[in-house]
Amino acid sequence: MSAREVEYWFDVVCPYAYLGSTQIEAVAAAAGARVVWRPMLLGGVLNARGTPDPNAAMPAAKARHNALDMMRWAEVWSVPLRMPAEHPRRTVLAMRCVIAAGERARDAARALFAAYWAEGRDVSDASVVARALTDAGLDGDALVARAGEQATKDALRAATDEAIARGVFGAPTMFVGQEMYWGQDRLGFVASALAR
Amino acid sequence: MSAREVEYWFDVVCPYAYLGSTQIEAVAAAAGARVVWRPMLLGGVLNARGTPDPNAAMPAAKARHNALDMMRWAEVWSVPLRMPAEHPRRTVLAMRCVIAAGERARDAARALFAAYWAEGRDVSDASVVARALTDAGLDGDALVARAGEQATKDALRAATDEAIARGVFGAPTMFVGQEMYWGQDRLGFVASALAR
Repeated sequence: MSAREVEYWFDVVCPYAYLGSTQIEAVAAAAGARVVWRPMLLGGVLNARGTPDPNAAMPAAKARHNALDMMRWAEVWSVPLRMPAEHPRRTVLAMRCVIAAGERARDAARALFAAYWAEGRDVSDASVVARALTDAGLDGDALVARAGEQATKDALRAATDEAIARGVFGAPTMFVGQEMYWGQDRLGFVASALAR
Repeated sequence: MSAREVEYWFDVVCPYAYLGSTQIEAVAAAAGARVVWRPMLLGGVLNARGTPDPNAAMPAAKARHNALDMMRWAEVWSVPLRMPAEHPRRTVLAMRCVIAAGERARDAARALFAAYWAEGRDVSDASVVARALTDAGLDGDALVARAGEQATKDALRAATDEAIARGVFGAPTMFVGQEMYWGQDRLGFVASALAR
């Protein structure tokens, strides 16, 4: 991969990946680079790292700070964000739809991120996913159908395995060449890497 | 506290607190604010939070990323930083000296941060601490002597208890009024808070 590309690894379940998803295209464009949207299953990554719930052992004081911190990023970037009534939702269907969207993975991702993190919708529900995708100009019903195909399931599993093999441990994770960056709060480093 | 001040809570044992310590004065100055240097014992804070070693359960992939990330901050800020041969060192003596330095806490902190993180010196050794402070224009021997006084010990314990009571769970931690910010990577938020 040339440095004219940044890989953006994400799962719509992650609010930090949502926040970063609203900025990454602008960061890349400023460097004349393009974004390669890389869906993965965050749960699979976390299980592989032995941290199925990385927040499980978090002190209450840190959890309080992190909840505030998340909203500070939303505010500084003017991004609509609210913690859904239920979280985490199962996103395996949603992420399979992103895989199925192929060249339009970005549009699918944005639609599903917005459904989850701006609109508080239940993206584990196929009809919710189909509608969100259709509203974004994609063929939601067709994507949901293709999400059920074995090839799509295998592709998401292979992508997740690739993430694990390359050292991913959370989301969002960005690669510029071999260099890995974790977190929406590291976009400045990504911008510098793309400018080199 | 008026918004014309930022409290900077730190322990010289923490490389992120070191990194932030090289930037906080400039951040405050840009907003016409002043820094209140607040020594604490990080070990006491972590024990109180039930996370005596917050990195204990960290996946290897995350630890590798974090080590790289630390050096990226050092590079972007042109700060000399190398992981000492031995880490963590006991910093209770060093932090008592910062307390004893009173109005010159900043100068003491900077000298001891540099000894630990730029020069790889053993700040658990009283003669090392005394020399570092003297080299920075302080009276190192007098400060080490005062570090042994009960009033100094009590003051560091009280400061640590205050940090715990106010929700601190790591270092560096900054307060602008009641708003708490954690990490050298949140100086942008601190700058915005001071500008409001």
